[in-house]
Amino acid sequence: MAEMTWNRHHVLSLADFSVDELNIVLQTANSFKDVLYRKTKKVPTLQARLVTNLFFEPSTRTRSSFELAAKRLSADVLNFSPGTSSLSKGETILDTAKTFLAMGADMMVVRHQDSGVPQMIAQAMDDLGENVGVLNAGDGFHEHPSQGLLDLFTLCTSIDPDQPATQLLTGKKIAIVGDILHSRVARSNLSSLVTCGAEVHLAGPPTLLPKAFADYGAQVHWSLDPALEDADFVMTLRLQHERMSQHLIPSIREYHQRFGITRDRIQRCQPQVKVLHPGPVNRGVEISSDLMDDESLSLIPHQVTSGIAVRMALLYLISNHSH
Amino acid sequence: MAEMTWNRHHVLSLADFSVDELNIVLQTANSFKDVLYRKTKKVPTLQARLVTNLFFEPSTRTRSSFELAAKRLSADVLNFSPGTSSLSKGETILDTAKTFLAMGADMMVVRHQDSGVPQMIAQAMDDLGENVGVLNAGDGFHEHPSQGLLDLFTLCTSIDPDQPATQLLTGKKIAIVGDILHSRVARSNLSSLVTCGAEVHLAGPPTLLPKAFADYGAQVHWSLDPALEDADFVMTLRLQHERMSQHLIPSIREYHQRFGITRDRIQRCQPQVKVLHPGPVNRGVEISSDLMDDESLSLIPHQVTSGIAVRMALLYLISNHSH
Amino acid sequence: MAEMTWNRHHVLSLADFSVDELNIVLQTANSFKDVLYRKTKKVPTLQARLVTNLFFEPSTRTRSSFELAAKRLSADVLNFSPGTSSLSKGETILDTAKTFLAMGADMMVVRHQDSGVPQMIAQAMDDLGENVGVLNAGDGFHEHPSQGLLDLFTLCTSIDPDQPATQLLTGKKIAIVGDILHSRVARSNLSSLVTCGAEVHLAGPPTLLPKAFADYGAQVHWSLDPALEDADFVMTLRLQHERMSQHLIPSIREYHQRFGITRDRIQRCQPQVKVLHPGPVNRGVEISSDLMDDESLSLIPHQVTSGIAVRMALLYLISNHSH
Repeated sequence: MAEMTWNRHHVLSLADFSVDELNIVLQTANSFKDVLYRKTKKVPTLQARLVTNLFFEPSTRTRSSFELAAKRLSADVLNFSPGTSSLSKGETILDTAKTFLAMGADMMVVRHQDSGVPQMIAQAMDDLGENVGVLNAGDGFHEHPSQGLLDLFTLCTSIDPDQPATQLLTGKKIAIVGDILHSRVARSNLSSLVTCGAEVHLAGPPTLLPKAFADYGAQVHWSLDPALEDADFVMTLRLQHERMSQHLIPSIREYHQRFGITRDRIQRCQPQVKVLHPGPVNRGVEISSDLMDDESLSLIPHQVTSGIAVRMALLYLISNHSH
Repeated sequence: MAEMTWNRHHVLSLADFSVDELNIVLQTANSFKDVLYRKTKKVPTLQARLVTNLFFEPSTRTRSSFELAAKRLSADVLNFSPGTSSLSKGETILDTAKTFLAMGADMMVVRHQDSGVPQMIAQAMDDLGENVGVLNAGDGFHEHPSQGLLDLFTLCTSIDPDQPATQLLTGKKIAIVGDILHSRVARSNLSSLVTCGAEVHLAGPPTLLPKAFADYGAQVHWSLDPALEDADFVMTLRLQHERMSQHLIPSIREYHQRFGITRDRIQRCQPQVKVLHPGPVNRGVEISSDLMDDESLSLIPHQVTSGIAVRMALLYLISNHSH
Repeated sequence: MAEMTWNRHHVLSLADFSVDELNIVLQTANSFKDVLYRKTKKVPTLQARLVTNLFFEPSTRTRSSFELAAKRLSADVLNFSPGTSSLSKGETILDTAKTFLAMGADMMVVRHQDSGVPQMIAQAMDDLGENVGVLNAGDGFHEHPSQGLLDLFTLCTSIDPDQPATQLLTGKKIAIVGDILHSRVARSNLSSLVTCGAEVHLAGPPTLLPKAFADYGAQVHWSLDPALEDADFVMTLRLQHERMSQHLIPSIREYHQRFGITRDRIQRCQPQVKVLHPGPVNRGVEISSDLMDDESLSLIPHQVTSGIAVRMALLYLISNHSH
């Protein structure tokens, strides 16, 4: 690891992450994970630094995870959500970001319903010569890199809890199942897993899984079984209910029948198969309820815990580079 | 006090609190009360522990009180309210609780509009073998134990500010007035006050005070005067406006005329009588405005202050037991 | 400065601020400004004190600024906004304030849509003999004193970054442009700038700028050019869109044509002219977009940064006096 160096101001997408960069995140997160199991789960690393959560699209889970990661590093946190804010008064997104910059933000965690907003803010900060790190916390259907990295960390630590590293996934068969088309989680995972040398299989109905995803280096399946066959890991994606009113799936029940993960279906996978889901889960839709509660199969709680460690790592790496 | 020990992981109800347990809370709260009057109102007791406020039912007052109690103990706090959250996305309550568990919650303060939710979460944590303390911050019409305990602390310290203890209330006549039926505050108070050996009298219109409450060991009155006669304390309850549209009371005005506490009416009480209300108060409905502002009669501000001390005590006792 | 002393419990209005008091704020804010440029942007000055933000009228910008200022001073912060709160349950404003008092509030930062609410709360605290400082964070069309003071600090530091003082503004021509009538920002600025001996010119359409403003010691203009002529500073005000539906302006476009600040128009000003705006800005309405982005002309980001320093100064001064 001596030769690996981190050169990013921002984390906007996993599309151009190198194997070295993925490994730096894994190792840094691993060292922070130990902090989380101590009684005093806090380090002074980012004392008095300011992390601003600019959540133009509302979120409980991701915002709480970033907030807690920042607090574990002793940073100050300001949460912004546009409910009753300046945006409804006509302010532009960039002017909002510049306001938090002028308040002294060292880092901005940005979520927005439109693709490209975190990139736009990062570009503007760079153009202004400002030393501010921007973290994409989910933008439209584009990317959700911290989710991709926490999933990667969860996969690797499930194989080797002490030394998580990308090569652990080389040659592993990983199925990603569900609404690939509208999933920023799927896009981020696809990038990093292909980079790790995993064999990625996508499964979903044709309306939610365009053939073009094969170009990313993945196998595309419009039925579940070939994706599950001998799989080491199954990553399920959340199904938004509005997909039905958009006539992209015939019904929730038929979706579950064709693409829901059940104890029966995973018989086709490797015996030690593990199941992941970014949450929140619709029990009985993407995944059966008993399988979700089976600790020998589900990595879902580990994903949540990994989220804190990985986000601590990202905040630390970015801040360390910027300042 | 040497022989008294605290054995609770959770505080869900006062129905089974022993006299010893009530006294442990009173003594612990009393020691924290001193902290609140120092210039530096903070102790490092729960440094870097994580208290999560899961308020499925919104609340300003109780949530702020728990948040401040946790901060006074130097804990970290994560607030969750379902406004724009995962719950509207179909996640179950237990999955939400498990998410916060996986984030590292040491304690969960839970409020929900349905009775039994905090119990359900506590049971699930125990079943999982997790060392997480659950505090009921109000569930449906069931219980609001921290309110019951802060009321108890307020009553006892009003008699002896230095050594609050349950025996101070033995034989005291305490009237609880108003919408008993829909009040979780009344149920919690009824339990603890009967345990202390107080003589509890309930007063309210028959639509809001079923005769069955006599089974709890209280006297039931459908008019105010017999409850007030020689009372040492009068605890008024909040009247929800919707009780009128539900045809449970004829009008706000008539309610006040029959059950509102006024300076005139409390002439029947003991000369040193004190009045309490859990807040927020509808002035001129449950209690007359001038009486509420009379510091020699009203313990209402003391209740708010006691809330911080008692919640610090509960967080401390639970955390001390769990870890 | 040895002879200058601060005697205020509360900051409610700039109408009666003396030159000495303005200078105390400028000097205190200047010393805190240095803290903001350190890597560790925090001082222990108000450790374990409690600042409560009572924002009956919602606000992102001002609330965040006060919250951050309090955190920089190591104070604890409780935010209150009435969304789903006790107020909708019928509690009076004063009872809400007294609840936060009983929780241990050392300072209350109050914003309300009605003029006079912060004064009312401050008076109530004084009447109760409570040692609580109240800061007006904007009340109706009345005043927004912390905005006035941060504007003053921004103006002075733009002339002399090291020694901001009121005499720097003596004889300077300052134009305030826009909806003066409905602007609490304009009222606060008018007071402090006249006290500093600046030559204040107001410009706006007659519907939004009553002639009576001349009584405050300002020149009133119903067109832009005479106000801009040789001006040293131009302060623009936010235009609320509802002014159009109230038939106070014919259209946004015509408003911009007559009173919008553009690169062309400020040719009439002094060559070193600087432009201010309290934000959030409607680009292309009050001010042209290119002018807003010109760092040699716009002091808008400086205003945001000054906000933190000035609010730290106010919290410090008030708390120092009260306790």
